[in-house]
Amino acid sequence: MAGNARDPGVSVASRLLALLAVFDEKTPALTLSELADGADLPVATAHRLVRELVGWGALVRGDDGRYVVGRRLWKLGLLAPDQADLREIASPFLHDIYGATLATVHLAIRDGDEVLYLDRLAGHASVPAVSRVGARLPLYATGVGKVLLAYAPREVHDRVLRNLARITPYTVTHPGKLDSELRRVHREGYAQTVEEMTLGACSVAVPVRGEGESVVAALGIVVPSIGRDRARLVAALQVAARGIERSLRR
Amino acid sequence: MAGNARDPGVSVASRLLALLAVFDEKTPALTLSELADGADLPVATAHRLVRELVGWGALVRGDDGRYVVGRRLWKLGLLAPDQADLREIASPFLHDIYGATLATVHLAIRDGDEVLYLDRLAGHASVPAVSRVGARLPLYATGVGKVLLAYAPREVHDRVLRNLARITPYTVTHPGKLDSELRRVHREGYAQTVEEMTLGACSVAVPVRGEGESVVAALGIVVPSIGRDRARLVAALQVAARGIERSLRR
Repeated sequence: MAGNARDPGVSVASRLLALLAVFDEKTPALTLSELADGADLPVATAHRLVRELVGWGALVRGDDGRYVVGRRLWKLGLLAPDQADLREIASPFLHDIYGATLATVHLAIRDGDEVLYLDRLAGHASVPAVSRVGARLPLYATGVGKVLLAYAPREVHDRVLRNLARITPYTVTHPGKLDSELRRVHREGYAQTVEEMTLGACSVAVPVRGEGESVVAALGIVVPSIGRDRARLVAALQVAARGIERSLRR
Repeated sequence: MAGNARDPGVSVASRLLALLAVFDEKTPALTLSELADGADLPVATAHRLVRELVGWGALVRGDDGRYVVGRRLWKLGLLAPDQADLREIASPFLHDIYGATLATVHLAIRDGDEVLYLDRLAGHASVPAVSRVGARLPLYATGVGKVLLAYAPREVHDRVLRNLARITPYTVTHPGKLDSELRRVHREGYAQTVEEMTLGACSVAVPVRGEGESVVAALGIVVPSIGRDRARLVAALQVAARGIERSLRR
């Protein structure tokens, strides 16, 4: 397409992007040959393109010879408006929830068949959770994920319910049981999990609505146990969600 | 270099990166012709490359026809380990400071001759500040910036002091005065600003040290006035900075 690539039909641009695509949460640091393998390129080609990426600041070569994502891409990524605007608007409300509960607080959106964590507040008193900003987790095993799944398009719902895998002994893997939970999210306005993603961690989450009542995000907290705190936690989340919704409409 | 670019010496890869480089905080949304102009490319070339970037998810075309950074680049940027690790380690400590002060809390590093905000906590009770995660501000007019400038290499120090511009009537623009403030940062362990960046906002900041006592970041807070609170604010910041340093050494 662009330029005269050696393999007809594969442009230099798409080779460059294929190299960047090899990086993910599980493999954030890669050797040149891992990059070449992952992008399906000859090592010489990968080397030439990686050198350009390093020169620009998209990648950085560490002391151990592995390449990692550089500061310039980090800064560029922060310009993504959907993520930046929602995070910026939601941020003070997340702090309000944190202040009221001292629990780990999450802001998440649906990314295909997974939940994507946009923001996360956690103090020293918070329950350890596996989430991290930019990380993705299963929709069916997290509080924010269940909210997003309850409002996902039919095809996402069906695909996810056909692929339920046990993560802890308490993960809901029976499609009928999960489906009735999702219907309850619509009815009662919140989702919960009890040690379904991580042992010792429970969660409660509520939807955040955008224009036309569509669900644009989920707001959730992680606590060691829910018990009789549920009403209080749901109330704190709903107050914050309404605040975010008002700010989004402005 | 790579491919057979039409302009000799300018590779397709570098053209693609030149297009991405046009995006910045001031121009996060761009038309095709603005992109072509900014990257110094013919519109047809820019169009072909932008189409590849959109196909991959690096850019997204909005309803108004302007291109913005897409979710895929946002996720990729979050893999940058320097930023991710420092933020992740510092995050609970930032919450501790926020909890103790309810002030806007900043974690920042030096990026060339500017201060780069890695993280920012602000609640509804916080003073409005112009900072934003990923934003850059002058080193000489912010609390975190003064800390980082005090420990910057000589050439950065000299360059910044030769280019002091008035931002508010209280910005320190006299090189000798600023220099004596920077020497005081070394002596007393903290920096402060009084309405030097934004009217109605003052700041206090302390260094965070990495291996070999080098300063790797600055931790600061923004308050409406400092007055007799200074000792308390500096103490809160220093406790958190020592905590971050201990976690960094692990």
